[in-house]
Amino acid sequence: MVNASPDLRTQINQTPALHPREGLRSTPIAGVILTGGEVDTITGLLTLREREPFTLLATTEVLAMLDANPIFEALNREVVPRETMALDQPLPLRLRDGSPAGLTIVPFVVPGKVPLYAEAGPDPAAICENGETIGLEISDGAHRVCFVPGCARMTDNLRVRLRGADAVFFDGTLWVDDEMIRAGLGEKTGRRMGHMSIDGMEGTIAALRDLGIKRRIFIHINNSNPVLLADSPERAQVEAAGWEVSHDGMRITA
Amino acid sequence: MVNASPDLRTQINQTPALHPREGLRSTPIAGVILTGGEVDTITGLLTLREREPFTLLATTEVLAMLDANPIFEALNREVVPRETMALDQPLPLRLRDGSPAGLTIVPFVVPGKVPLYAEAGPDPAAICENGETIGLEISDGAHRVCFVPGCARMTDNLRVRLRGADAVFFDGTLWVDDEMIRAGLGEKTGRRMGHMSIDGMEGTIAALRDLGIKRRIFIHINNSNPVLLADSPERAQVEAAGWEVSHDGMRITA
Repeated sequence: MVNASPDLRTQINQTPALHPREGLRSTPIAGVILTGGEVDTITGLLTLREREPFTLLATTEVLAMLDANPIFEALNREVVPRETMALDQPLPLRLRDGSPAGLTIVPFVVPGKVPLYAEAGPDPAAICENGETIGLEISDGAHRVCFVPGCARMTDNLRVRLRGADAVFFDGTLWVDDEMIRAGLGEKTGRRMGHMSIDGMEGTIAALRDLGIKRRIFIHINNSNPVLLADSPERAQVEAAGWEVSHDGMRITA
Repeated sequence: MVNASPDLRTQINQTPALHPREGLRSTPIAGVILTGGEVDTITGLLTLREREPFTLLATTEVLAMLDANPIFEALNREVVPRETMALDQPLPLRLRDGSPAGLTIVPFVVPGKVPLYAEAGPDPAAICENGETIGLEISDGAHRVCFVPGCARMTDNLRVRLRGADAVFFDGTLWVDDEMIRAGLGEKTGRRMGHMSIDGMEGTIAALRDLGIKRRIFIHINNSNPVLLADSPERAQVEAAGWEVSHDGMRITA
């Protein structure tokens, strides 16, 4: 169960456990769960098009984005069935042979914006709270993990969901809201792109500080974010606040 | 001037000349010319979406495939203008500042099939000869190179085009037509996928043998093709026939 991002491909290349087990092109991937329809979330699917069977799970909204792009028909629907996930409903995951994987997920809404390529209407930057951006609660019955790769702002619902989790993987795109502008990489703030930032009064560190979460781990980190540098003051600051910065090949053990 | 394939990305990562020259995300790429609309030809465009300006050149047919997929709107049309190339018309390439690049291309039709994801109608495997699959003749005034990454069969027109070229880069997808089936990778022959094979009476080596081409180089080689192995009998055979097998980072000097 993975998110089909470019990072996944890196992971497949670097993690021996994900090397083909049979033949030239097999993968052990039984399913892909999409948490949104942005380019970096869905493009990786196109590298999984070599007729390897898996189940593609997404919300109605995200499946509609795939449907609107014929290029994703490269994933033959007979080999890669597309299944709709209902929000807030527990969904037991299955292995390829149909037997229980021992994990249950609950997809939940996270504030976000429509993908850049699908922006339209009077306010393309509008933050929506529907199935276009979701998080996943993952449980094996004993532990509870929340996976939130993109989040535009904290809400009461989200706080309730994250409280007391064994681990939270959270959107670490930017350190500060105007980071892309300062670096000369673009004209947009993090807010405009649908991401809350790590630092500041309304930032992620502050928002998740008192929720009793055992492990807090930043994922989906932009290459402009100084927390990526092992010797930066910002890295020291997130670590002092009890956060970890994810890296390729990272493994989490309960 | 490059083909936006995953290989390009490898090349960017590995070739110092293609490292960013300014800032975190600059590229020296002034333009991308598409030779078709298949997934492996166009997906690389999505990694060039960070607001770096370049010109996207393609035929009417291929631009229509991009238009039909909203995900490619991630390349803002104001930053990355899309320009139609006319078949058989010389097109002088320009640098980013508009000055001549010193290279002229002529796009020409090559037998091919529509992309897998766009297959439809009574005969999805039909070979067409229109702007959906093209080759490029590239000239600096003194040398003439032909670039043909996908070709379903040899034709008289194609022979005329390739004859006497200083170099030809040609579709090396498969060694033999049933290679994918034998390897258990799929049910399709090369012919069904729109690729002629290297070996055999109607193969590429035979078809390009007597055309007076100075250098013949296989590109677009599938991972099932034994010519990729430096010590295979098939590699020895293509080299004995005067062909070269391309590799990441290859540079050709006149």
